Amino acid sequence: MRDDARMEQRISLITLGVSDLRSAMDFYAGLSWKGSSPDGDVAFFQAGGMVLGLWNRAKLAEDSGVTDSGGWGGVTLAHNVRSPAEVDAVIDQVGPTGGKVLRPGAETFWGGYSGAFCDPDGHPWEVAHNPSWTIGDDGSVTLP
Amino acid sequence: MRDDARMEQRISLITLGVSDLRSAMDFYAGLSWKGSSPDGDVAFFQAGGMVLGLWNRAKLAEDSGVTDSGGWGGVTLAHNVRSPAEVDAVIDQVGPTGGKVLRPGAETFWGGYSGAFCDPDGHPWEVAHNPSWTIGDDGSVTLP
Repeated sequence: MRDDARMEQRISLITLGVSDLRSAMDFYAGLSWKGSSPDGDVAFFQAGGMVLGLWNRAKLAEDSGVTDSGGWGGVTLAHNVRSPAEVDAVIDQVGPTGGKVLRPGAETFWGGYSGAFCDPDGHPWEVAHNPSWTIGDDGSVTLP
Repeated sequence: MRDDARMEQRISLITLGVSDLRSAMDFYAGLSWKGSSPDGDVAFFQAGGMVLGLWNRAKLAEDSGVTDSGGWGGVTLAHNVRSPAEVDAVIDQVGPTGGKVLRPGAETFWGGYSGAFCDPDGHPWEVAHNPSWTIGDDGSVTLP
């Protein structure tokens, strides 16, 4: 909040509800992500300047104060890369890991190139090359 | 992908499906977030080294290759702050802006302090102080 008591413009953590922590961790490990579970209940992956968490979906719903209607709930993650070829390379990694390719890499209506996959719990990720967004050496993304 | 063809460990964009772009933008603007819509269809907010997007939920579902079952879908965002007092200050901002406080700030079972709110489309955010996580001057969060 600093001096002016405003909410800083950033997201610290995204927690994905999962049905089986080990299977979900194995999926992200299959995409070369390194994380750990301090207690066998929740898992955390450092993701640039933020954190990806995995936690039992029913516990997450209760903790979040929401009712779980099942299925997808209007949130899609994206992983932006530096070229269309990198989109294809990421999508190619998904096959053997318990996830599902939702669409292969292809040109998009907004002038980029993207594909999409979901993890074993159905959480969708777009893998995208957006030529108008800048990706820094540290992977951070900056809007035009 | 760099040399070793691995997926880099980062998230570039989180897109939240919304029913009315202007109302959703107004909500985040009410939390002091600055963003813009290049086309009146999608809106982007720079959020540290990543981006928060707002887009029509039906279009997002179609683009993501998923079926929309309505309601919450197992994803909760979190905004970590530097003290319990900052948790309360963020939660206090939510009232007049079209969101809903899901739970006020309180001590948590994991040794921190947090509250939660949802935006006008029901996307929940936890606002948390986790004494074991480090928050940098730029707002980035680092696991222990």
